[in-house]
Amino acid sequence: MTEVEVKKPQERLQERFTQVVNSLQRLHVIDESQGYSREPGSAQEQVLAELQQTVTELHSADIAFILEGLPLDERLTVWQLVRVESDGDILLEVSDAVRETLLADMDDHEIIAAAKELDVDELAELAPELPHDVVYELIEALDAQQRDRVRSALSYEEDQVGSIMDYEMVTVRDDVALEVVLRYLRRLKELPDHLDKLFVVDHEGYLKGVLPIKRLLVNDPEKKVAEIMADDPVTFHPDEDSADAAQAFERYDLISAPVIEKSGRLVGRLTIDEMVDVIREESEEEVLSRAGLREEEDIFASVWKSIANRWAWLAINLITAFVASRVIGLFEHSIEKLVALAALMPIVAGIGGNSGNQTITMIVRAMALEQLSTGNTNRLLRKELGVAFINGIIWGGVIGVVAWLLYDYFALGMVMIAAMTLNLLLAAMMGVLIPMTMVRLGRDPALGSSVLITAMTDSGGFFIFLGLATMFLL
Amino acid sequence: MTEVEVKKPQERLQERFTQVVNSLQRLHVIDESQGYSREPGSAQEQVLAELQQTVTELHSADIAFILEGLPLDERLTVWQLVRVESDGDILLEVSDAVRETLLADMDDHEIIAAAKELDVDELAELAPELPHDVVYELIEALDAQQRDRVRSALSYEEDQVGSIMDYEMVTVRDDVALEVVLRYLRRLKELPDHLDKLFVVDHEGYLKGVLPIKRLLVNDPEKKVAEIMADDPVTFHPDEDSADAAQAFERYDLISAPVIEKSGRLVGRLTIDEMVDVIREESEEEVLSRAGLREEEDIFASVWKSIANRWAWLAINLITAFVASRVIGLFEHSIEKLVALAALMPIVAGIGGNSGNQTITMIVRAMALEQLSTGNTNRLLRKELGVAFINGIIWGGVIGVVAWLLYDYFALGMVMIAAMTLNLLLAAMMGVLIPMTMVRLGRDPALGSSVLITAMTDSGGFFIFLGLATMFLL
Repeated sequence: MTEVEVKKPQERLQERFTQVVNSLQRLHVIDESQGYSREPGSAQEQVLAELQQTVTELHSADIAFILEGLPLDERLTVWQLVRVESDGDILLEVSDAVRETLLADMDDHEIIAAAKELDVDELAELAPELPHDVVYELIEALDAQQRDRVRSALSYEEDQVGSIMDYEMVTVRDDVALEVVLRYLRRLKELPDHLDKLFVVDHEGYLKGVLPIKRLLVNDPEKKVAEIMADDPVTFHPDEDSADAAQAFERYDLISAPVIEKSGRLVGRLTIDEMVDVIREESEEEVLSRAGLREEEDIFASVWKSIANRWAWLAINLITAFVASRVIGLFEHSIEKLVALAALMPIVAGIGGNSGNQTITMIVRAMALEQLSTGNTNRLLRKELGVAFINGIIWGGVIGVVAWLLYDYFALGMVMIAAMTLNLLLAAMMGVLIPMTMVRLGRDPALGSSVLITAMTDSGGFFIFLGLATMFLL
Repeated sequence: MTEVEVKKPQERLQERFTQVVNSLQRLHVIDESQGYSREPGSAQEQVLAELQQTVTELHSADIAFILEGLPLDERLTVWQLVRVESDGDILLEVSDAVRETLLADMDDHEIIAAAKELDVDELAELAPELPHDVVYELIEALDAQQRDRVRSALSYEEDQVGSIMDYEMVTVRDDVALEVVLRYLRRLKELPDHLDKLFVVDHEGYLKGVLPIKRLLVNDPEKKVAEIMADDPVTFHPDEDSADAAQAFERYDLISAPVIEKSGRLVGRLTIDEMVDVIREESEEEVLSRAGLREEEDIFASVWKSIANRWAWLAINLITAFVASRVIGLFEHSIEKLVALAALMPIVAGIGGNSGNQTITMIVRAMALEQLSTGNTNRLLRKELGVAFINGIIWGGVIGVVAWLLYDYFALGMVMIAAMTLNLLLAAMMGVLIPMTMVRLGRDPALGSSVLITAMTDSGGFFIFLGLATMFLL
């Protein structure tokens, strides 16, 4: 990767984005007035040349950013102006949804030309999205070691360390002097990115320690590597969960770390840039899955793609809403007699849902950070029930008084307080028990948590409120 | 910071956590059976000595992790066993809520002893949480330059680069040879963390470029710094938004970067570890504020603290729920005549809320990444309305048929379809317009987005469904 040349990064990028949008606008205007043309000598060609000039000067991550922010047709116009050498890098940077649209626009030759510029680990990252025969051809073109590495990377799950590690390790022996190491590095001409430590291995490739560049720089060049290396570094295994690895990177402020097999043999390297991506993706997934989106959506995706991305949770929600509706159906006679119940029941259900979501969000977060074991259930449950009880009395009291005054019916106000309190207690209990149960069953506690808790507090709230009303008011 | 000594980081940490919990358990059992005592010679003292042994071996980030996962009384037992030298680091690592509980347990002397171990930027980070006279005493103890730096850091907002930059820059002149630089570094004995580049400044402190350590290592030692430095590096300003800086770090895979004043004078340094914290905090805030929690909560916080953290959104929700209830109140006569309406109306409102939340989540995300300008409003609106219309016909159709069969009333089914479609269209429109308007007003589009959209789709859904029913069925 070349050195970046940007000054106030965020502002300059926004400027470039605006430039690109303006050029595309002008192109569109000319197309409208003079008819569509991309021929040499046309007015459009000039605009395109300008646009290409702008794009060529950009870092591939910036081009990726701009492509993601453009509607499909404009995106492809820009994509065709990008130089082949950058294609591979850009494909790695864009979101999955946008990558799909870019790949769909390329023929096999273009894809192969782009992918040839990539490192082995990058190729492995892209491979699952490429046509099979393209992958085959690309792998055939590699030497035996690289081919093994691609195959190995592809054998791990997307969320395992093995699939995101790179192979750009610089290794040294522990019996050489630092001076020798410095000479060795100088001979390499170019060093990999994120090189903050060298890996010290024995002649069979087993990791014996790491030599931080910092120590290499400050110590006497005559010292031996063995004297100054760190011999118990943080290491990872290829089958480890990459989210765990990212947490360790964050906790220990790592920049790079060796990946070793169970036997202790060095097989790869993890770097902070990959870990930052993992952290970002993880949090995105959490936000999206709470809202019932299956994956990050290309904001300019077609209507049909969007529907496919969103339908599953809408369907689940339809079922839970239907169940809640049948609960109300049980009490139709009560509502006929006292129609105020119909107006008041959504309040009980709504506040319960809000409160339950607060509880479950907090607990799912703590579980994601692995700070909460199922052993704490009782203590937490007591606390949440306490919060719910007090909130029930306070907010139930407020709304109970309002209901009493509004309908001039004291007993209705009392039922409201009781129902609010009971539904908040239900919300608290479910907010603790749902994620705890999910974890015991080996499931992800975040997935569907919001839908599940809302389903409970809706059906539960209607049942409690209408049930109490039927018992005490009719 | 010392070198970390952990092997399978996540597993080993969980082991230690379990060890700590077991020791605390044993302590509790002895207290119960033999009476509370912490005297020398007591059985408890042995357990505590063991516990201290375990804790002392841990990295401060690991101790922070364990403290966050313990209930208050046990947390303080462990906290009292931590060595004073680590106190400061640990206070920086724990969440705000947990830090508060730890500080509350320390007297001024202990706080001062802990804070004295910190760097200037770390001290500035902690200062707002400390008692005023403690801060005063700490600042008095600094030399003039450090005092200025602390004051300067405190003058920036929490979300500005100036408040999180550090001062551990290693600077060199551009007219010296690399050999000289290498000798200079060796004389420093210890280099700052995350040092991947040296900053090249002139004699007045203006930044002229950066010298990546990688280049220093591979180039001929006789070359001059000016020959191999990068003279247009990514730089930041102290008043820049730290979230913007974090995005730039992510995009350009930076490890450290210079912070310069408008004039070009070098004033500080940003490092990837701070940026990772920014990314993590940002995403946490998003998740929490959606659920209506003001800040990250200590999961073992007292009941009253939890109530204070959560009350605001519950109150807002109570108001919006009350409005929705009044909308239903308008149609009490219709419900009296056809009580099925009461059972069906939550379905219309619920699906609308779910769908609106999907739209708004996606748009708020795109806006946070600054990929979406208010100029795209029309295009997006058209797409979302398209998705809503099709979803309305499909899911409205499903539930309409169910309602028709259930109540044996064809027209009711038709009203159901129409109401579902209209409410989904309303949800889509509001899902696009609410965040767009927030941004035009200069507000954060995420804050309260979920409450606002749900309020619209609840009141709107009830109004549409009951209104249509009143017009066509009664």
